[in-house]
Amino acid sequence: MRERFSVTTGAIPGSRKVHHKGRIHPDLRVPARQIDLQPSSGEPPICVYDTSGPYTDPQAKIDILAGLPRLRADWIAARGDVEEYKGRDIKPEDNGLKEETAQVARFPVVHRPMRAKAGRTVTQLAYARAGAVTPEMEFIAIRENEGRERQAASAPASGESFGAGIPDLVTPEFVRDEIARGRAIAPANINHPESEPLIIGRNFLVKINANIGNSSVTSSVAEEVDKMVWAIRWGADTVMDLSTGINIHNTREWIIRNSSVPIGTVPIYQALEKVGGIPEELTWDIFSDTLIEQAEQGVDYFTIHSGLRLRHVPLTAERVTGIVSRGGAAMAKWCLAHHKESFLYEHFEDICEIVRAYDIAFSLGDGLRPGSIADANDEAQFAELETIGEQCRIAWRHDCQVMIEGPGHVPMDKIKVNMDKQLDCCDEAPFYTLGPLITDIAPGYDHITSGIGAAMIGWYGCAMLCYVTPKEHLGLPDRDDVRVGVITYRIAAHAADLAKGHPGAGARDDALSRARFDFRWRDQFNLSLDPLTAEDFHDQTLPAEGAKTAHFCSMCGPRFCSMKITQDVRDYARKGMAGKSREFIEGGGEIYRKAASGPPIKAAE
Amino acid sequence: MRERFSVTTGAIPGSRKVHHKGRIHPDLRVPARQIDLQPSSGEPPICVYDTSGPYTDPQAKIDILAGLPRLRADWIAARGDVEEYKGRDIKPEDNGLKEETAQVARFPVVHRPMRAKAGRTVTQLAYARAGAVTPEMEFIAIRENEGRERQAASAPASGESFGAGIPDLVTPEFVRDEIARGRAIAPANINHPESEPLIIGRNFLVKINANIGNSSVTSSVAEEVDKMVWAIRWGADTVMDLSTGINIHNTREWIIRNSSVPIGTVPIYQALEKVGGIPEELTWDIFSDTLIEQAEQGVDYFTIHSGLRLRHVPLTAERVTGIVSRGGAAMAKWCLAHHKESFLYEHFEDICEIVRAYDIAFSLGDGLRPGSIADANDEAQFAELETIGEQCRIAWRHDCQVMIEGPGHVPMDKIKVNMDKQLDCCDEAPFYTLGPLITDIAPGYDHITSGIGAAMIGWYGCAMLCYVTPKEHLGLPDRDDVRVGVITYRIAAHAADLAKGHPGAGARDDALSRARFDFRWRDQFNLSLDPLTAEDFHDQTLPAEGAKTAHFCSMCGPRFCSMKITQDVRDYARKGMAGKSREFIEGGGEIYRKAASGPPIKAAE
Repeated sequence: MRERFSVTTGAIPGSRKVHHKGRIHPDLRVPARQIDLQPSSGEPPICVYDTSGPYTDPQAKIDILAGLPRLRADWIAARGDVEEYKGRDIKPEDNGLKEETAQVARFPVVHRPMRAKAGRTVTQLAYARAGAVTPEMEFIAIRENEGRERQAASAPASGESFGAGIPDLVTPEFVRDEIARGRAIAPANINHPESEPLIIGRNFLVKINANIGNSSVTSSVAEEVDKMVWAIRWGADTVMDLSTGINIHNTREWIIRNSSVPIGTVPIYQALEKVGGIPEELTWDIFSDTLIEQAEQGVDYFTIHSGLRLRHVPLTAERVTGIVSRGGAAMAKWCLAHHKESFLYEHFEDICEIVRAYDIAFSLGDGLRPGSIADANDEAQFAELETIGEQCRIAWRHDCQVMIEGPGHVPMDKIKVNMDKQLDCCDEAPFYTLGPLITDIAPGYDHITSGIGAAMIGWYGCAMLCYVTPKEHLGLPDRDDVRVGVITYRIAAHAADLAKGHPGAGARDDALSRARFDFRWRDQFNLSLDPLTAEDFHDQTLPAEGAKTAHFCSMCGPRFCSMKITQDVRDYARKGMAGKSREFIEGGGEIYRKAASGPPIKAAE
Repeated sequence: MRERFSVTTGAIPGSRKVHHKGRIHPDLRVPARQIDLQPSSGEPPICVYDTSGPYTDPQAKIDILAGLPRLRADWIAARGDVEEYKGRDIKPEDNGLKEETAQVARFPVVHRPMRAKAGRTVTQLAYARAGAVTPEMEFIAIRENEGRERQAASAPASGESFGAGIPDLVTPEFVRDEIARGRAIAPANINHPESEPLIIGRNFLVKINANIGNSSVTSSVAEEVDKMVWAIRWGADTVMDLSTGINIHNTREWIIRNSSVPIGTVPIYQALEKVGGIPEELTWDIFSDTLIEQAEQGVDYFTIHSGLRLRHVPLTAERVTGIVSRGGAAMAKWCLAHHKESFLYEHFEDICEIVRAYDIAFSLGDGLRPGSIADANDEAQFAELETIGEQCRIAWRHDCQVMIEGPGHVPMDKIKVNMDKQLDCCDEAPFYTLGPLITDIAPGYDHITSGIGAAMIGWYGCAMLCYVTPKEHLGLPDRDDVRVGVITYRIAAHAADLAKGHPGAGARDDALSRARFDFRWRDQFNLSLDPLTAEDFHDQTLPAEGAKTAHFCSMCGPRFCSMKITQDVRDYARKGMAGKSREFIEGGGEIYRKAASGPPIKAAE
């Protein structure tokens, strides 16, 4: 069967792709998105972080069958510490099949995998510890500043960062030091050179992840590639491929070769497919072979549920919703069936050896995260977190990058203790949480229940927020759900940056608010997280093009508008108040300006 | 022109209207919504708060042309302290017209207004201070308990209430004492006997308000009545009619006569219409006449921007978005034009005399609320709040009920100080906030940016949350926007109740989570805030009726499901772990149950 691929390309309305050069590495071309404002504003453009990859670059030629340009290939090769090798043969069971009959074609271009040469360590953590500033690190530093170094200094941001230490400007050396300290990671598998480096850590912009993936019940590889491109277009910093069922290997290959953001997976999902979905038949051999399979493809971070131990399992027996993590449930079942300690726990150092050879980051999975408000912050959850903390330090000893996954369903009053306990147990390794959802009673709106928790935990110090779509608990997200999920989480992440006092985070808010105050509708749309939706909503009431320049909106209409009154207030307040009232009345005392010229403005019928 | 009225009636899916009797006032019939669970659950029904009025009662005959039954008429009459009187003549200018040509017909039934007899005070605050437990107070107490007094005691709720004092069970006497203390209000104009009493206060369930209203640009009275009924169906506790333009009097009459929830207004909007939209032409006479006009119609609470003083106005001159409150902007302009102190400030005690005669609650408006992140918590905002605090105490001296309005646009780190300062300045009078919106950059998604702030400030102690719809800043909300806004705010309010440790708030979460864990899909839909959307989203992937009873969902499919694994884990953990692994394997070690009988389940094409 031939898939027909189609993805959304072209600039996001009202903005254009720009590239910034490096200083240490002058060849770097670091993408950013520039939003030019109307000349009447007299304001400079706003530069914003750009996750969308080459898809929004009109200069780029997009060919899904060829994959993206291999941006980092030369950087990796230049370090001289990797070797190409033959790699593992792809077997039918890698696609969940008994024989070579995958419905999804193999990706047309085959790249031989690379791994660290014997005795060499190729992780960004190892480089950082050795004092090196890699191209990846400088790329990240430029990206994080969002062009701030080229703008006039603004007022220092206020905020409450709960102990985070965010610099005014991010330097490549700061990136290096944070990675070396383990407080940030840059997931960057050497076999995914198509990816644009990014950093996940408390002292940087808060990041978001979007989950995609087919299940055994529904969806196709073309849909998943489209969803990935769609998710990064709206602002996903990383994408997790959570596919299950058949074609899992080939689907992942299509996604990775076309992804400019790091890709995460939960390898146990594929390992389970290889044993017919029967957890107790999992073995270390099957699991470790799956890790190598995915490492060779270029997965950038692995969720590994190694913190769930045999002795934690009974702690979940009285829970309202037991174990809701698929990986956690599988490992719990394995432990019980064999009455043995988890093989992931036992083989943790072996896993370190594998992932280190490719620079895959750990995302230590919370197999015992609460699946309901009732189960939040219980003994099972925190016992696992303590084990994860121990493993975090083991991984660091092996020069592996690590982040830590967190809940789940947590009422607002129990969120901060999650963050504080994670920082404490895991020595400030980056936290990566799903939501949390702050109530269980709103299926269909769980992007919102979780977006609330996400904004809060992001403020408290969480480094990356895993999105939840409106379909959570109910079905697989479609394209619209992906967009709504991503935008909701961009709101949460940005609100967290603002509340932390991230320098420059308020620049876009202020520019948009000034545009709103000036009735520069076009600037208001362009500066918003989702310009298309903003314009569409405006046009539902006032579709005429003239209404885009009108000095009123449909909420109050042209006769009365507080924004316009304020302009008068401002003028008069500035002149001083004494004796001004007569002048005001004599001057006409207009409370509104005439609508800008253009066709007459009519409300939608 | 004859409007064609059509509103949504009938029970919300999966639930039925029940009524609870009073003890002190045995004739009370206090409505609640009961959600019956599937017999297989072995669980009692869940009783939830019901804002929807007679519209969801299959026994009720709905006739928009006649208005709702006058539930409180006998209670009011029985107190012997009110008198009917002729009332004010309705003038063309009440509808913003020069002559009697209103497009919107007058409401067909005319009720003569009532007011307090000379020397009598008819406010719930006065009754409470006198030690009386009115039928309104007992109605409220029964409503607040959500049937909890008839259920087995559950585990004590944990939470952080920041000094709120929420009792295990709400008694009528507790309601009285909180009203007497000024810490809660029960807006209940004697001319709106159709309304079902509710309470707004920090020690009760968090409430939400929905705004409706036409503007001079768009919408009709039938639409507004429909939106009001639609808003209370989904959970609006009160509704504000923010109409502007013509027909404002007649539109309001249709809304009030058909509303079972308290109606709030901003009287200055209508007063402005009467002076052609020119703020400086406002006078005390026009304003006070408008108050009486609306008082006679039955408006339950008035937003009055009396805290904005002449000397506050210059404090806004350097703001990014100046004055965004329409009422605030109008008063600022009036003050500047006349270079005089606000007539609302000067006449505050006169306003008290008017509203006291009808038991209209004050909602002291924050005319200087911040309209952007940059303006949050500035000197202008807090200076006005301090004046409002003084007026709160004046109103209390006049036996008037008072709540205080709050912002606006506020980043997360600046929300709590708003709540703390309000409690301090206003001696714990209930706080009623719009959002707050935690970032400015997401027009089209401001139900979410504000829902996050609303959940947080509700947790910190805010008593009522004014919804924001996806159309905020862009246009007038339609029916879908109203639903999304209301559900988002129900999430925020409920999450706040949970986090505060409101006793019983977790019962619905737990019941839904148990239903989820048991794959009782129908119960899961019925227990959710929006059963229709939950079911619709489920059915987009798995439309077959059999999938409603299937022991899997579309996310994982039938081969692998963590929920099912957990059931096994639970069984085995409970039996004790030693020696169990062999038994498990021998017993078949099934990781999933067979799907329930029924037609084969297919994914949506």
